[in-house]
Amino acid sequence: MLRTHTCGELRASNAGQTVTISGWVQGLRDKGSLLWIDLRDRYGITQVTIETENASKEVVDVARSLGREFVISVTGKVTERYSKSNKIATGDIEIYPDNIVVLNAAIVPPFTIEDETDGGDDIRMKYRYLDLRRNVVRKNLELRHRMAIETRNFLDKLNFLEVETPVLIKSTPEGARDFVVPSRMNQGEFYALPQSPQTFKQLLMVGGFDRYYQIVKCFRDEDLRADRQPEFTQIDCEMAFVEQEDILNTFEGLVRHLFKAVKGIDIPTLSRMTYADAMKYYGNDKPDIRFEMKFVELKNNSTNSPLLWRAAGGEAFPVFEKAQLVVGICAKGAAEYTRKQLDELTEFVKRPQIGATGLVYARYNADGTIKSSVDKFFNADDLKKWAEAFNAQPGDLILILAGDENKTRKALSELRLEMGTRLGLRDKNTFACHWVIDFPLLEWSEETQRWHAMHHPFTSPKPEDIALIDTKPGAVRANAYDMVINGVEVGGGSIRIHNKEIQARMFNLLGFTKEEAQAQFGFLMNAFEFGAPPHGGLAFGFDRLCSLFGGAEGIRDFIAFPKNNSGRDVMIDSPSTIAQAQLDELGINLKK
Amino acid sequence: MLRTHTCGELRASNAGQTVTISGWVQGLRDKGSLLWIDLRDRYGITQVTIETENASKEVVDVARSLGREFVISVTGKVTERYSKSNKIATGDIEIYPDNIVVLNAAIVPPFTIEDETDGGDDIRMKYRYLDLRRNVVRKNLELRHRMAIETRNFLDKLNFLEVETPVLIKSTPEGARDFVVPSRMNQGEFYALPQSPQTFKQLLMVGGFDRYYQIVKCFRDEDLRADRQPEFTQIDCEMAFVEQEDILNTFEGLVRHLFKAVKGIDIPTLSRMTYADAMKYYGNDKPDIRFEMKFVELKNNSTNSPLLWRAAGGEAFPVFEKAQLVVGICAKGAAEYTRKQLDELTEFVKRPQIGATGLVYARYNADGTIKSSVDKFFNADDLKKWAEAFNAQPGDLILILAGDENKTRKALSELRLEMGTRLGLRDKNTFACHWVIDFPLLEWSEETQRWHAMHHPFTSPKPEDIALIDTKPGAVRANAYDMVINGVEVGGGSIRIHNKEIQARMFNLLGFTKEEAQAQFGFLMNAFEFGAPPHGGLAFGFDRLCSLFGGAEGIRDFIAFPKNNSGRDVMIDSPSTIAQAQLDELGINLKK
Repeated sequence: MLRTHTCGELRASNAGQTVTISGWVQGLRDKGSLLWIDLRDRYGITQVTIETENASKEVVDVARSLGREFVISVTGKVTERYSKSNKIATGDIEIYPDNIVVLNAAIVPPFTIEDETDGGDDIRMKYRYLDLRRNVVRKNLELRHRMAIETRNFLDKLNFLEVETPVLIKSTPEGARDFVVPSRMNQGEFYALPQSPQTFKQLLMVGGFDRYYQIVKCFRDEDLRADRQPEFTQIDCEMAFVEQEDILNTFEGLVRHLFKAVKGIDIPTLSRMTYADAMKYYGNDKPDIRFEMKFVELKNNSTNSPLLWRAAGGEAFPVFEKAQLVVGICAKGAAEYTRKQLDELTEFVKRPQIGATGLVYARYNADGTIKSSVDKFFNADDLKKWAEAFNAQPGDLILILAGDENKTRKALSELRLEMGTRLGLRDKNTFACHWVIDFPLLEWSEETQRWHAMHHPFTSPKPEDIALIDTKPGAVRANAYDMVINGVEVGGGSIRIHNKEIQARMFNLLGFTKEEAQAQFGFLMNAFEFGAPPHGGLAFGFDRLCSLFGGAEGIRDFIAFPKNNSGRDVMIDSPSTIAQAQLDELGINLKK
Repeated sequence: MLRTHTCGELRASNAGQTVTISGWVQGLRDKGSLLWIDLRDRYGITQVTIETENASKEVVDVARSLGREFVISVTGKVTERYSKSNKIATGDIEIYPDNIVVLNAAIVPPFTIEDETDGGDDIRMKYRYLDLRRNVVRKNLELRHRMAIETRNFLDKLNFLEVETPVLIKSTPEGARDFVVPSRMNQGEFYALPQSPQTFKQLLMVGGFDRYYQIVKCFRDEDLRADRQPEFTQIDCEMAFVEQEDILNTFEGLVRHLFKAVKGIDIPTLSRMTYADAMKYYGNDKPDIRFEMKFVELKNNSTNSPLLWRAAGGEAFPVFEKAQLVVGICAKGAAEYTRKQLDELTEFVKRPQIGATGLVYARYNADGTIKSSVDKFFNADDLKKWAEAFNAQPGDLILILAGDENKTRKALSELRLEMGTRLGLRDKNTFACHWVIDFPLLEWSEETQRWHAMHHPFTSPKPEDIALIDTKPGAVRANAYDMVINGVEVGGGSIRIHNKEIQARMFNLLGFTKEEAQAQFGFLMNAFEFGAPPHGGLAFGFDRLCSLFGGAEGIRDFIAFPKNNSGRDVMIDSPSTIAQAQLDELGINLKK
């Protein structure tokens, strides 16, 4: 070993020992008579001190030849410092070197290896191996390692078996776009990379495996957004002989264990919310419940609720009159918002990605009066009624949107999150975890003019809703659930269909012909005939779960070697062209 | 939960409890007044007993409607058996059911779900989910799970970090053939699936990660042999600031831990053998040292060893005269081999895959006489000299091959293994683990007429041999090592090059132009300029390691969903054709 100790472990109790440490030169100060080297490795930083008068010429010469990020090995005596530092864990000691060996020189790195670096995203990605030297990035990956170990040990104790499912599988038309792999031995045919091990884990249940998990890479060839990667990692789980309740309990147990073991936080039992309530009260199937600020409907044409605000004598407000839905939130203590702040909020909701046409507000002043942006149409009694509906107090600000139902809910959800952020209600060190349950089985696609599976085609309808499949497919609820933490969907799953006929009916509903269903998923439907147990499961997005635990917005710095938004690895310059001979062997041509 | 207990856990102490168990009907016996159901799950088998006179009509009717592999749930009272069975762990009890629920019916499986099945390989693979229900197959995958957990926890304790490296990487011309993945977003370009995470783990070392591991899928598009899979799993490891000694110690520690934790076996410290000795004494770079039977050379033209056998007065034996190498083994206690057995051995070495032209034998009879197949050419004194060279005793059989050096060593190695098997010296429950070290850096390929890296292009030459690179490349030894267990190479690795110039020289030696080396591996050579620490590592073949621990020959039954020799998954029928639209999106065409 080219070291006896790491750069993070020496303490005053080691004083007097001769040790060897190895690492990277973090910094170098030369005061003439004194030279200091800060030597860094994964475990910490240790100060190496050279008194030029007492040290050998060789040691001094080598020390003066060093530059940032040189890799060196230092042998010397551990000495208790005269003036200790509490900035680093080894701050009680320093090393007086007898010998310094340059293991490898280094040219100047293109950005500083510090927590706050001067390197932008692009250059950090190109030199990712240097970026990984930064504490903050390494700590993220150490967190990820810890999460994986704790996940495995927790599930192992519950008799879950980690089973590796294949990466070279079969392309299926349902779901997102597959990455495909041309087969050389079966020319003209392709493997696909799995979007998830869904059918394999179900077959493991048919195979009697009972409790399965895997921390596994999955792949989707989608157009990338800032926070999506073409390859990503799931904690993928499945159980047999269970009902929804068992899955929810088991996996909230896992997440609570992770919070305790990795972050030392006790998370209470998870609350549950139906999809219908999530949409009604938060306009969102993954509400951030770190703060309340629930939606209050003033008018809803689809439920024929009364027009709470109608002025006794005043003019009708055309925007509300026309609207399908009038819905708002009450921002506690925001009545003092300035005109400028309110204009900002109006601009916010009118941005194309939000899409509202305007924002109505009503300030509940400290003196008990209410001042709204629509005073022309509504009198004080009307506004009083609003305040009651919102359960508003003096000092609160009511914000109201109106328009088409779905769009307005979505817009208000964004506004709610924005207000939560502005009011400091979304602390990244506070964790609010809950389940959203009772998702619809199907959603109608205007684009394809057919029903699509909201979760996936293997999700079981609720037994009590099965009769609705033929008459009112949109009303059928699924035994499907998502785990939401701080407004982020970290996991989701469902009880699966385990009956061949129901599965066939589902494929039919999704527009598969009998032949297509058999060709694509025949193996699964056949398996259901040989004694398939009731089963269900879920998958967590592991990259996202880690970034959430790490208190970060993005997932990239929780992935050692991520790809950019064009799906490129800029460090290794991939994808790249391949040789004609390779194409020939595979029996494919590039299109001109 | 559709059960209160598993089918493996009820004991006499549970007698009197009302329980629910769920599982598959393993068997059903109907004696009229008594009905027995053997109910099976992953954890065991429990007997359900129905006294038709005392049970409800419904229970009896349901029980009589069952068939093999039906999935049922049974609720009833645990009762201590009158006549206990010690064949199953639950043999002390039986359950008298109050209720039986059919969770799913089953059609008759195409083969029996028993340890000894009537199903051949092909049908077992097609219905792999049924095959997985068999105890023997499930136990293999349980072993694999345990191996993975123990590996991770052992390495975690030593501060190794598991880091996921990318699956979509870049195709490189060195090594085996890559699987490639066409990029839709970068048309005309391809990702490759990794043959190993080699360069990424080295970059992690450059990134200061120090100790890395991963249990990871790797991919090779090679023509498959019985025991090769296009996707396979490695325990992949790398360490920085180490020398070869450190790696050997760390990872023999891992393997010894696995033997202890998984199989309860204490494995002694691993012995080490140089590649040169392995070839000299066993004709094989992965010798099975469960038994001795070392090669003894009677003639070796390349070392000018004396002709030990030359008869004082007799005729010269032309086969030996012409041979580059005359080498043999001594099979202890095999002097009694019959003519027929010796003929079998001769046939064995003459098979085309072995390729010897004949076999010379000499029996050291119990009476002290020696009888050889070449008595015409050698007298008793000659044969006595042979016996001395082989350290043979009365009762032993000497077997000798002659011919071209490499071919003869290889053939004798096969014969040695065959004799080891015949003499019962290769017990699969005995484990002989050792290291083979000091591999050559390079090997000459007649086909490409250039040097190839014996391990891979990143392997470091031994510092003391570097001077030979230009003058005698074939003599340069590498800091490379393999771990061998029972004649199987279970892992291998090397100390890597961490210096840009040496790496460039290596690529040059391997026939890369400067431009090619830069285009393919520039990212790695550039990384070496920014302070790369000395580092090295190894990878274990996880599938093989598991099969070895499981005492099996093949790896397939240690993989949940393996592919056949044509790279096909016959269960899901993959690879398969894909839609023209998919090809269009990817910008590729199939060749006619």
